[in-house]
Amino acid sequence: MTGVVIAGIGQTEFSKDAGRDALQLASEAGLAAIRDAGLTPRDIDGLVTYTTDENDELELMCSLGLPELHFWARTPGSGYGASATVQVAAGAIATGAAKAVLIYRAFNERSGRRFGQPRPGEARALPFDRHRSYGIDTPAKMYALWFRRYMYEYGVTNEDFGRYTVVARRHAATNPAAWFYERPITLEDHQASRWIVEPVLRLLDCCQESDGGVALVVTGADRAPDIPAPVRVLGAVDAHVRGTSVMHNYYLPDLAGFADAQRCAVRLWEQTGLGPDDIDVAQIYENFSPLVFLVLEAYGFCGRGEAAAFIADGNIDLGGRLPVNTHGGLLGEAYIHGMNTVLEGVRQVRGTAANQVGGVERSLVSSLSSALVLGPV
Amino acid sequence: MTGVVIAGIGQTEFSKDAGRDALQLASEAGLAAIRDAGLTPRDIDGLVTYTTDENDELELMCSLGLPELHFWARTPGSGYGASATVQVAAGAIATGAAKAVLIYRAFNERSGRRFGQPRPGEARALPFDRHRSYGIDTPAKMYALWFRRYMYEYGVTNEDFGRYTVVARRHAATNPAAWFYERPITLEDHQASRWIVEPVLRLLDCCQESDGGVALVVTGADRAPDIPAPVRVLGAVDAHVRGTSVMHNYYLPDLAGFADAQRCAVRLWEQTGLGPDDIDVAQIYENFSPLVFLVLEAYGFCGRGEAAAFIADGNIDLGGRLPVNTHGGLLGEAYIHGMNTVLEGVRQVRGTAANQVGGVERSLVSSLSSALVLGPV
Repeated sequence: MTGVVIAGIGQTEFSKDAGRDALQLASEAGLAAIRDAGLTPRDIDGLVTYTTDENDELELMCSLGLPELHFWARTPGSGYGASATVQVAAGAIATGAAKAVLIYRAFNERSGRRFGQPRPGEARALPFDRHRSYGIDTPAKMYALWFRRYMYEYGVTNEDFGRYTVVARRHAATNPAAWFYERPITLEDHQASRWIVEPVLRLLDCCQESDGGVALVVTGADRAPDIPAPVRVLGAVDAHVRGTSVMHNYYLPDLAGFADAQRCAVRLWEQTGLGPDDIDVAQIYENFSPLVFLVLEAYGFCGRGEAAAFIADGNIDLGGRLPVNTHGGLLGEAYIHGMNTVLEGVRQVRGTAANQVGGVERSLVSSLSSALVLGPV
Repeated sequence: MTGVVIAGIGQTEFSKDAGRDALQLASEAGLAAIRDAGLTPRDIDGLVTYTTDENDELELMCSLGLPELHFWARTPGSGYGASATVQVAAGAIATGAAKAVLIYRAFNERSGRRFGQPRPGEARALPFDRHRSYGIDTPAKMYALWFRRYMYEYGVTNEDFGRYTVVARRHAATNPAAWFYERPITLEDHQASRWIVEPVLRLLDCCQESDGGVALVVTGADRAPDIPAPVRVLGAVDAHVRGTSVMHNYYLPDLAGFADAQRCAVRLWEQTGLGPDDIDVAQIYENFSPLVFLVLEAYGFCGRGEAAAFIADGNIDLGGRLPVNTHGGLLGEAYIHGMNTVLEGVRQVRGTAANQVGGVERSLVSSLSSALVLGPV
């Protein structure tokens, strides 16, 4: 137990061209989350986001009308740290530094700076550039080299990855907030999409590029009675094994696994006293479809090398053993740097998801190197 | 009480040309702090620094040999947040996220990128650029505009500021770690130094530009018995009032005061049950000498507009009522973005400062918009 609840959530529309700047997106999402928590900007005294967020906290503070900040911090893991922001906010609440922390992430990642494009003229910026001289100049190429070992080790094919994509797009198709609302695909569509990095990733294995903002409010569990729809944070962990990168696993002895996620799982089960059988629904950060496979195995939802069969057998579908990315994921809903995935974890506990799973008591959010378990108050 | 202790401190030499990169400086300082705490790299599972630090945590992890990280965060306030890093680390300890957090700041701010130089070609980077079209293109100019109002309101002169500089350089002169070791100055030297922003700041009112690294280890107070020289964190606060900037106060109703520091003081006294009379020694972040005046008044060590007389009367000297910046400050020791000021606060409690004050029970560190009170275990 972390002693905190997620009190409110808010988001803008998800698009390819928001037509307004990141400060406005963060403000809109932030204000929506504050209102959803039954609070006013006057009640917020902490801000947490990613190091990569371009908004200045003091500007956002003015924009939202927060009178005074008593805590601010940023997590360095980008999307991998979506859940880590909640861990950091929990620390602020535990020490009394802040009473209510607004977590946010907002950007124009499609109409503005696209993460997926090579930027050869840009100064060295870890971890992108360590392997640039080998032609590995985009996240897709960086990840594909790692995923290839997984495919080799367990005989997994791109068609297997496609089966996840089909599920994600099916979930998005019935989520009105998703960019790919009412646009499901078939496995044939997936297999017909162009190679991004052959033979690992096709276009439809890659997450979207999106414009939008997402926010949530974290406060003390003691305040839950005054909050309209509080969700308890049962566990919050972050784990980075030496020798990994935020973008790949090239150097560890076991190249076909995901060490950070494995360690997150161990710590999460230790912290909560739960195990994979206790989880009712899971949201898994997937900038690329193979990450769902690696994470399912890391958390023990299936054995090593068994994710392809686990997915093919319908386990991650709505109505399956463990519905996954019920909002459509970063492939189907939008790519708000993984923070939208945290919000879906909250909605599943509240019972307000577009694709609601029945009787959710334990909702997992895997943000790759960080994770949460959420449950009812 | 924050439930944490500062277990160890470490630093490199302070210079104008370190001759090695920021990663090495961070590693050297970090390893020194870990050893000083009686720990090994194996014991460290958290990292905290400023958003402006150029080191990648995963690289530092490899360099130091940390096996696994369970918490990382950065504070957005730059030097203003030197003390805020301890507040963030305390949250990690309180929630059990990490067992021991290494805080660090390392750079080549003199031989590399100099903060004090205008960078007209650089893209917009708040808060530097909002007033650039008015010619306010360096921190000295930015601050001077604010300080000018203080001078006007209370009849304070640049000679008054010089009296602080003389004290800082006197303290540095007997601190072997200080760049200005054995190089004290007179008020005449100060008044003969060239104007940087007339009539507010002369060269000798400005902090140094330095190369170096500084680190400290924060862990739970329950582990104090196993630590050679633990220092208790009695209070840790951060405060940002809406309408301020990290670099100035241009827009608040009261332009001759320092709102963030005033709010830090209120929160620190609330948190600790202490007041200005309880403080034995104070380390005050001063990238420019007038900040010492504003902070002394904000914490109630003297009344509004009385800092010049308070300093002239010898109160901040060694042997005075409240010795200030006993290491020589950022003017006299070095400018390691204010983190070296935190270390001097620790040394004063340990009794190991070059200019040791007798019987220190309550050691204040003011990092402008954040602050600590340190004391013996």
